[in-house]
Amino acid sequence: MFLECFHHTTRSNWAYAYDKDTIHLRVRTKRDDVEEVTAVTGDKYDWDGFHEDVPMLKIAADEDFDYWEAAVKPRYKRFSYGFRLRSGDETVFLTESGKFGEPPPPPGGYYEFPYIHEIDIFTAPEWAKEAVFYQIMPDRFDNGDLETDPEFTEEWGQPPTNDNIFGGDLQGILNRLDYLSELGITAIYMTPIFESPSNHKYDTVDYKKIDPHLGDTELLKKLVASCHDRGIRVVLDAVFNHASEQFMPFQDVLKNGEKSKYKDWFHIRSFPAEVKEGKASYDTFGFYGNMPKLNTSNPEVKAYLLDVAEYWIKEVDIDGWRLDVANEVDHHFWRDFRHTVKKTKPDAYIIGEVWSDSLMWLQGDQFDSVMNYPFADIVMGFIASGDRDGVTFANQINQLLMRYPQQTSEVIFNLLSSHDTPRVLTRVDGNKVRLKLAVVFLLTYIGTPCIFYGDEVGLSGGNDPDCRACMEWDEEKQDHELLDFYKLLIHLRKEHPVLRSGRFRFLKADAEDSRIIYERLGEGEHFTIWMNNTGETSTLTHPMDADDWSDALTGERVPTYEGQMSVGLEPFGYRVLKRAL
Amino acid sequence: MFLECFHHTTRSNWAYAYDKDTIHLRVRTKRDDVEEVTAVTGDKYDWDGFHEDVPMLKIAADEDFDYWEAAVKPRYKRFSYGFRLRSGDETVFLTESGKFGEPPPPPGGYYEFPYIHEIDIFTAPEWAKEAVFYQIMPDRFDNGDLETDPEFTEEWGQPPTNDNIFGGDLQGILNRLDYLSELGITAIYMTPIFESPSNHKYDTVDYKKIDPHLGDTELLKKLVASCHDRGIRVVLDAVFNHASEQFMPFQDVLKNGEKSKYKDWFHIRSFPAEVKEGKASYDTFGFYGNMPKLNTSNPEVKAYLLDVAEYWIKEVDIDGWRLDVANEVDHHFWRDFRHTVKKTKPDAYIIGEVWSDSLMWLQGDQFDSVMNYPFADIVMGFIASGDRDGVTFANQINQLLMRYPQQTSEVIFNLLSSHDTPRVLTRVDGNKVRLKLAVVFLLTYIGTPCIFYGDEVGLSGGNDPDCRACMEWDEEKQDHELLDFYKLLIHLRKEHPVLRSGRFRFLKADAEDSRIIYERLGEGEHFTIWMNNTGETSTLTHPMDADDWSDALTGERVPTYEGQMSVGLEPFGYRVLKRAL
Repeated sequence: MFLECFHHTTRSNWAYAYDKDTIHLRVRTKRDDVEEVTAVTGDKYDWDGFHEDVPMLKIAADEDFDYWEAAVKPRYKRFSYGFRLRSGDETVFLTESGKFGEPPPPPGGYYEFPYIHEIDIFTAPEWAKEAVFYQIMPDRFDNGDLETDPEFTEEWGQPPTNDNIFGGDLQGILNRLDYLSELGITAIYMTPIFESPSNHKYDTVDYKKIDPHLGDTELLKKLVASCHDRGIRVVLDAVFNHASEQFMPFQDVLKNGEKSKYKDWFHIRSFPAEVKEGKASYDTFGFYGNMPKLNTSNPEVKAYLLDVAEYWIKEVDIDGWRLDVANEVDHHFWRDFRHTVKKTKPDAYIIGEVWSDSLMWLQGDQFDSVMNYPFADIVMGFIASGDRDGVTFANQINQLLMRYPQQTSEVIFNLLSSHDTPRVLTRVDGNKVRLKLAVVFLLTYIGTPCIFYGDEVGLSGGNDPDCRACMEWDEEKQDHELLDFYKLLIHLRKEHPVLRSGRFRFLKADAEDSRIIYERLGEGEHFTIWMNNTGETSTLTHPMDADDWSDALTGERVPTYEGQMSVGLEPFGYRVLKRAL
Repeated sequence: MFLECFHHTTRSNWAYAYDKDTIHLRVRTKRDDVEEVTAVTGDKYDWDGFHEDVPMLKIAADEDFDYWEAAVKPRYKRFSYGFRLRSGDETVFLTESGKFGEPPPPPGGYYEFPYIHEIDIFTAPEWAKEAVFYQIMPDRFDNGDLETDPEFTEEWGQPPTNDNIFGGDLQGILNRLDYLSELGITAIYMTPIFESPSNHKYDTVDYKKIDPHLGDTELLKKLVASCHDRGIRVVLDAVFNHASEQFMPFQDVLKNGEKSKYKDWFHIRSFPAEVKEGKASYDTFGFYGNMPKLNTSNPEVKAYLLDVAEYWIKEVDIDGWRLDVANEVDHHFWRDFRHTVKKTKPDAYIIGEVWSDSLMWLQGDQFDSVMNYPFADIVMGFIASGDRDGVTFANQINQLLMRYPQQTSEVIFNLLSSHDTPRVLTRVDGNKVRLKLAVVFLLTYIGTPCIFYGDEVGLSGGNDPDCRACMEWDEEKQDHELLDFYKLLIHLRKEHPVLRSGRFRFLKADAEDSRIIYERLGEGEHFTIWMNNTGETSTLTHPMDADDWSDALTGERVPTYEGQMSVGLEPFGYRVLKRAL
């Protein structure tokens, strides 16, 4: 066995409490190298009295590795353990101290899960696991109140630029709640709505004031209450990494320099705070001099921002916060942020914007979720490229899945596009059939899906600012067939808990073959999803034990013959099959 | 290249801020497989403007892997990066998204260190890095006040049992400060001193009262002040995982059952709280019914214990806490504990009792250090076994060293024995020459060394209770030659900062050869330590570039001939050589 490839640590995604009684253990071995893995467990204070061998299941594989998992329920909330690996006649025993031919005397040197503390368990709001999100840029969704439009409001539907403003507002969203209810989404994430000079409003001037072009606090209250009446939750965008240069404290620093009582609210490298030859004398978001970075380790700044976080929950009853540039803010701040938010509203949902590996924010003490951009890249890479095979796709998806504990994967914020990426339709070169394949995956995969406003009616657009076009409300120009497809898939996900909570596994993912099959299993149901990610009509045949499958969208029976099922698929076609357990 | 063996993540021991300007990156490759590793870095918001290639140094190896490290000082406290690996003509590029023949366009999919936040940097007290600790069990060190002896006090020097009490006390320690000063230690760690029915006092009855057999608060104040006068710090033992069954709140639960206002102070599985047929109806330390586990997630319990932590710092000015069974207490508790302690005394030193991989407590938000039991096992395994070769020892030490960030390794609590293990002398079967070899390693290695009382005068003893014998004060029976040896080595360590902070590396560690050489490098000095861990006299020859070496203990010049140095070593002998840089 290639034991150099074995990996386990006593924390994070490798050993974690799933609930107050259950610990998930995972190990990694070289792909196709090990036949059997057993977790050998016992109580450290009475090994023999509580010794148990727990077989581990191969739950995923990527290019290099197999991943094995077991759920252990120790009698006294604690246990020590080692792993027995078998391949053919060869058996090896691994503990924290090394590799052994025979198990060393327990528990010294064994791995240890010292105690399950409920307070340390990563738990995210139950509703987030059930939700289908819809992301809205308020300026681009609908103009519901012409009175609040700024002077240079652009005509609705003109090409978006970095600076133009279209007059969309909270009233516009309020006016379109019927549309959203019919679409079937159950939560809205709005990009920033606080006072700001820009169209995107990621540079906040006043954290406690709704931008007057969008509405006011009363209107937001009304919007949130109306959403709640319809069973729709509302999450706002918190931009706490940096502010606008027009933010009063920064203006004070510009004016009073080192004498400003706000001088430690930012990271000023040298006074005066200024931008000279394109270089700011203070830390900024990116290299934007108009977005000074906030010093979130300053207790005054922290108190100010935590008050903001609490204020909007108390004042308008929002259901959570999406955190902009969350990875550039310190961990102490986020721990206190979580504490404040959860104290104010225990089931508030906290989503960080982190594009890379986010495990360090997802240990239960900071975020509930992160925007899953790697997911978007992998799915769109598979479906848009046309040259990636099934096994590559499965390797990438599995690797991402194994990055986090299960409860994290259940609420991670999966998206195909956002205000910071090209739109889905553009990524698939306008090919709506391919787009649908990506949406099927999004809505049948584990995690909380989010749809970017307008994707469902056929909006297209490249990178920012193109992806931020105005919502299409002209029924003549909306793609109704696509919209109905979105409704169908959203409905399907909501109807079937297994699509949210069931175990995910690839059944077919082969080299040089872009056709895949994957399953969701559990919660009394079993789904298999068949995808033909090629330009040719194809019949996909795969062994299937059960013979009581039907099409989850049409209800049509799908028979098996002699333990094999053959499914005919159009180019870039799919079938969603289900059976009861 | 065996790229399955490559490992890096964007956190913990693989990517961490060493100070406010410097990030350490580490990667792992298969041993002897890769010739060159380069960190390819740049600013994510302006890659080309701040692109830099940083060569990585091979700093350690273990059985399976080489470890490479680089220190990166990004201009704007943030950077993205990938790694270029070369072996012969083969070059591979690795990012968070995978392996590539050519570097993918940066920074998308690259690893990222988003921003160095000073508040998130792991920092331990500077004094702890410089300290030499001495562990005392007060009942066994010296009986300074016969008045406070309990009724059944055993005669000093009788064999220790699980229950006997010898009358040692705080006055005894106070009386022996001259001895400790002469020994050269700079910090004392005392096992518990609060009111308790046992001799070890790991079952606390009253957290705010010194056990009357040991002394009182005034005496502790005097002891701490006297220590401080001599430049000796004092760390106490906090037993917060569990209490004594005589702890008032638990007595209240026993008496009032579910009606007790303390019923949530513990983990009661079912009422009444009782021990029936050997099984407690509540969670305990181990399976000891007389040590009910505290519910540290209960805000009342937390407030109570944090007040205790603060009280003793404020009241008697102690310099830190050693935390008993620290891994079985929740992380939220320890985060708040750190906050309370550091607020009260910013340079207090916090040492957790964790026997296994402790990284999860050493991220800067919980402990400064842990008791390094794996270190004891590895060193004693090498020196006591007589059959372990140099490369096995080096592999184990290097693996342990690579487990933690550098600043953690600099203050980790290294020990050879404690009240919970056999004594050093017993572990080496009474062979004092071997014992010395272990002590040389302890005192020339990276980390904060701790000496268990009495080891320095030749106390022996197996596992608890044998290892807890009375200190030997009879000068006739003390081993003065050994005591002088300890003094010499302690003095050496204190004189030479390089032994605390310098880079550690093995120069010779071979298969089937128990002779080793290692170096400490930096701080204006260079040390090489030569050890002959065999029963035979041996001349050890090794290439040495410089020729200005001298014996650090005797001052004698040690010449090199044609770039080679030959050092004659007695059985289990050692030489400590130094040169100025």
